[in-house]
Amino acid sequence: MTNRTINFYAGPAGLPLEALKRAQEELLDFAGTGMSVMEISHRSKEYDAVHEEAIALTKELMGIPDNFKVMLLQGGAHLAFGMIPMNLLRGDRQADFITTGNWAEKAFKEAKLVAGDRVREAASTKAEKFARLPKASELQINPNAAFVHFTSNNTVEGTQWKDFPKTDKPYICDMSSDIMWRPFDVSQFGLIYAGAQKNLGPSGVTVVIMRDDFIEMCQSKDLPSYLRYPLHAEKNSLYNTPPTFGIYILRNVLAYNKSIGGLKAIEANNLKKGELLYGCIDKHAGFFKPFVTEKADRSLMNVDFFLPTEELTDTFVKEAKKNGMVGLKGYRDIGGIRVSTYNAVSVKDVETLVAFMEAFVQKNG
Amino acid sequence: MTNRTINFYAGPAGLPLEALKRAQEELLDFAGTGMSVMEISHRSKEYDAVHEEAIALTKELMGIPDNFKVMLLQGGAHLAFGMIPMNLLRGDRQADFITTGNWAEKAFKEAKLVAGDRVREAASTKAEKFARLPKASELQINPNAAFVHFTSNNTVEGTQWKDFPKTDKPYICDMSSDIMWRPFDVSQFGLIYAGAQKNLGPSGVTVVIMRDDFIEMCQSKDLPSYLRYPLHAEKNSLYNTPPTFGIYILRNVLAYNKSIGGLKAIEANNLKKGELLYGCIDKHAGFFKPFVTEKADRSLMNVDFFLPTEELTDTFVKEAKKNGMVGLKGYRDIGGIRVSTYNAVSVKDVETLVAFMEAFVQKNG
Repeated sequence: MTNRTINFYAGPAGLPLEALKRAQEELLDFAGTGMSVMEISHRSKEYDAVHEEAIALTKELMGIPDNFKVMLLQGGAHLAFGMIPMNLLRGDRQADFITTGNWAEKAFKEAKLVAGDRVREAASTKAEKFARLPKASELQINPNAAFVHFTSNNTVEGTQWKDFPKTDKPYICDMSSDIMWRPFDVSQFGLIYAGAQKNLGPSGVTVVIMRDDFIEMCQSKDLPSYLRYPLHAEKNSLYNTPPTFGIYILRNVLAYNKSIGGLKAIEANNLKKGELLYGCIDKHAGFFKPFVTEKADRSLMNVDFFLPTEELTDTFVKEAKKNGMVGLKGYRDIGGIRVSTYNAVSVKDVETLVAFMEAFVQKNG
Repeated sequence: MTNRTINFYAGPAGLPLEALKRAQEELLDFAGTGMSVMEISHRSKEYDAVHEEAIALTKELMGIPDNFKVMLLQGGAHLAFGMIPMNLLRGDRQADFITTGNWAEKAFKEAKLVAGDRVREAASTKAEKFARLPKASELQINPNAAFVHFTSNNTVEGTQWKDFPKTDKPYICDMSSDIMWRPFDVSQFGLIYAGAQKNLGPSGVTVVIMRDDFIEMCQSKDLPSYLRYPLHAEKNSLYNTPPTFGIYILRNVLAYNKSIGGLKAIEANNLKKGELLYGCIDKHAGFFKPFVTEKADRSLMNVDFFLPTEELTDTFVKEAKKNGMVGLKGYRDIGGIRVSTYNAVSVKDVETLVAFMEAFVQKNG
């Protein structure tokens, strides 16, 4: 029996043990090849089966309609921040960005580098330190915007769009930190992108889900080839050598997710984890102060809260570590505690943390 | 005892068994963390030690001077094809490209997309199907070129610059398919880049070695951040989340390479492998026809040759597979046989292949 640490890292983060065990068992001999999956050609039939399965499982688990392509690329959200405006904001095309946190703001700033004033902020809660999401009445959508960009979960601040913003525009969404946390209707999105390293797999793989009309909208022929979404879509992410081992782990994670009942079952777990953790925070409202000001905006992936003093915060982190729990230190700009409870964090893991929090309040409250 | 297939794939390719075993042993519990290395934060001290060691070993093995930075990025040579002109060929800056094969030509064409006529071919052997390298007398260097780009080993065609081209310019070099095959003087290079998946590790990691004056030459402030070499250099490749597991495997491979005596020992192995394989081809010159026309240009990483008929070629590939050897089918544009003998291919592996070739000639010659 492996003695596993309870992993609350914000990313790279924990993965299902079953997905890792499968990798360990076949690390030296994949599918009877006598080689590791990372040693075989990306044009071999053995790798191709993994590649196709990773894409097929993404489509199946998320219920992605046939008018979308799933791409498995590199460079994380950061490279996507550049590729999106370079492909989609040429000429006089305009777009709106909803800036709700550190990452949403980065996406907006990077788009501005390419598109200048043709990109605008449709709303921002920066004046309130991004401690809540904008309300529907605060969204000022440019009627000429080709799309609205938003960040579905704000990893740093701990807010999450449970109901997506309501506009009549197609969406481009950074789902790096909550993709596949629950089922949702993909059809309203023109492009979804997500670094794998929170809910899906190791760092170094970026999942891009793009609607056919958005692929057609791209003006990419004069871009360096790696930066062209339509080329990757046409070549099924095999124009260049893909990150084969990362995609293999992604496949293992998705196959495991399917085996436990898919996104419905995962959503139920995530809701339960949120009830337990926020329940404890609210119960001890005099001791634990949540960063997020609106309950409806609370993230089920990243939970930020403060303790009465910095000294107690340090003690909390240290004692949690002694009790086998890591990754609890808050993001540097915010401080306090951040608990990241991605899909691979179990209800039992959160129960263990909540028991620790209860004991901590008893002792220090 | 693991029954390992003899792996002659052109890339992704075989890795040292010791590097993989180390990964397998600690896949669920890295450095006593109770987590996989792919599950821990890229800001954790445990990952940071891996990251620093991978960079330090690259510097040590290659004898890289202090006025260079080693970066560990994503996107392979394809993304570098774009980043190089975007960073270094702005304004009126000019550069020369020596096109000696499929990949060298791609680098040139991608640079042209960004820099237009400011990039020129200093020499090309395309008229001879890239079956040899240009001679010194054929190089026409633009006196205004800021650098000369070349490809040290041509994976498709099987040529390799044993002596680098002689000019008075600094070099930018794609070393994807032969980096670390031997020691060499790094100081004459402004930038070296290499996808890891041939000599160094899994796909999804790109090693970039850049001289300080080339970093300073970059005009990158208006580029999307992932595309800026100076930013990655300044942030030690931790501006964004790096491909942590790929870098960990790279570290394992480099640590193994050091343990066996470094690049001097690796060079001796590679020379021996070349003697054996080319010796067999030349011995049976009526049966095996090498693709490369100049002996001095023959690659020690990729060996291309033809058999008398396509039928015999197919039989060769099939019988080799029955004998535990894979990856021998030639590249689609050339046909015939390609034997890729990267660093992880042992002298014994090549001896096994040569014995098979001898028997094949006896039977079919």
